[in-house]
Amino acid sequence: MNFYDKLRVKPGKKVDVRKIDTSETCGWNDREKLDARLEENAKRMLELQYRIYAENRQSLLIVLQAMDAGGKDGTINHVLYAMNPQGCRSQSFKVPTPLEASHDFLWRVHAAAPKNGEIVIFNRSHYESVLVEKVHGFISGKRLQQRYDFINSFEEILHSNRTTILKFFLHISKEEQLKRFGERLDDEEKHWKISESDYTEREYWDDYMEAFNEALNRCSTKHAPWFVIPSDHKSFRNLAVSEIIVEAMERMAPKLPAPTIDVAQIRELYYQDANAKKSAKKKK
Amino acid sequence: MNFYDKLRVKPGKKVDVRKIDTSETCGWNDREKLDARLEENAKRMLELQYRIYAENRQSLLIVLQAMDAGGKDGTINHVLYAMNPQGCRSQSFKVPTPLEASHDFLWRVHAAAPKNGEIVIFNRSHYESVLVEKVHGFISGKRLQQRYDFINSFEEILHSNRTTILKFFLHISKEEQLKRFGERLDDEEKHWKISESDYTEREYWDDYMEAFNEALNRCSTKHAPWFVIPSDHKSFRNLAVSEIIVEAMERMAPKLPAPTIDVAQIRELYYQDANAKKSAKKKK
Repeated sequence: MNFYDKLRVKPGKKVDVRKIDTSETCGWNDREKLDARLEENAKRMLELQYRIYAENRQSLLIVLQAMDAGGKDGTINHVLYAMNPQGCRSQSFKVPTPLEASHDFLWRVHAAAPKNGEIVIFNRSHYESVLVEKVHGFISGKRLQQRYDFINSFEEILHSNRTTILKFFLHISKEEQLKRFGERLDDEEKHWKISESDYTEREYWDDYMEAFNEALNRCSTKHAPWFVIPSDHKSFRNLAVSEIIVEAMERMAPKLPAPTIDVAQIRELYYQDANAKKSAKKKK
Repeated sequence: MNFYDKLRVKPGKKVDVRKIDTSETCGWNDREKLDARLEENAKRMLELQYRIYAENRQSLLIVLQAMDAGGKDGTINHVLYAMNPQGCRSQSFKVPTPLEASHDFLWRVHAAAPKNGEIVIFNRSHYESVLVEKVHGFISGKRLQQRYDFINSFEEILHSNRTTILKFFLHISKEEQLKRFGERLDDEEKHWKISESDYTEREYWDDYMEAFNEALNRCSTKHAPWFVIPSDHKSFRNLAVSEIIVEAMERMAPKLPAPTIDVAQIRELYYQDANAKKSAKKKK
């Protein structure tokens, strides 16, 4: 199963997220097999990350968007857990500070972009500016259309600097969200996170789906594709995201830099005693 | 064994790192027992990190310093791996950029300090300015003495903003370093990392030990203690560091924020149908 191709929103083809089955598992129902595959992917990610870090030439940007309780935190915990924290950074975007709000909407996002050799995960992103702001009518018409163009141009400049971009919409059903909110009610450790607005915001569900449709259709480009991840089943969601990340990292084909030293010479210069001892031992 | 007290450089007491046995294991020679303990600590760290993040009031700064191959990367990999990348960030300090070099030596360090709720690991730190720069004579006399004072004052301001500071000197012997450099020669994946200067820098070993002595004695304060970690044995090093971090996180005693909602009311409002179904089921 090539998740990369299957779940990608192809440029030019219109997607309607309302028609996508959020409970899809693509046949991955054997939990043991799935966990083994996740384990393999985690190992491979770590190897590839080492090379990206060493190469210090390319970078990877992973964007996570979802409705509340859609699994952004869970995805970071389970899939990206595999990464070495050196060279991997998670960046969340909350309500803009006064300084941030006094700039254009891409200012704080650009500042947080990955540098060479780095992997950055955006927990929410610049897309909030065409999702929540659109849904609540803070932006519309020409100015909204312009934002999609700005976003595409912004992502293109990152790409031109050798940043691979993967954008995931973790797609759950409205019922699944209510169920997950309910689970939080059952867990005292999570009560501090819950607010009344979690529930009132559900009234805008359909508007959000439309906003996602427009964002995905306008901004899934060749160089910065969107993926729609059926996410009612958490383990399938983790699998699909990790498969796509591994695939993208393989495509980056990072190379270790050439050594600057002559290994044989270093051995000769600094390990003569040790070498002498070794060969003395062998002779015995 | 309370590693926090045993390995801490007590303010006012002079330490001489040359007299500390780098191969010490404090009796932890049973690998299985040690691994089990590391596992426990990792779990506890994750729990406490969740609370620190949720509380959003305190922060933790972990400073790692060591001679080359002393185990900074390894410590981050093995011990801090336990952390959730959300709310935990690893920051390394390399040769200053032109912009950084045009500021005072604490400028870039201050900018990288943890915010409320965050855990930050410094891979190298402001101490490079009183270690490598002292050893190579870029700084000395009055200006050097002033730097220690600036450092203490800087760490005090972080502490005053509820940052807990832990500074680890991962202490290996000169022979252990040569051995580890040798292992890199045996691993092609690591050849790109090796430079001739790794070896030539060894001529300054004694000067480095003196510089560490002075830094530790001048800057191990009540609020920003230094710990000397015997690090020839990697698993003991990991254990000691994790024990001290867990102890410090326990002392922070982070509290979950109080809920802003009335859980019973939310259940009443949004889960009536589900509740009705449940009680209907029970009646059957």
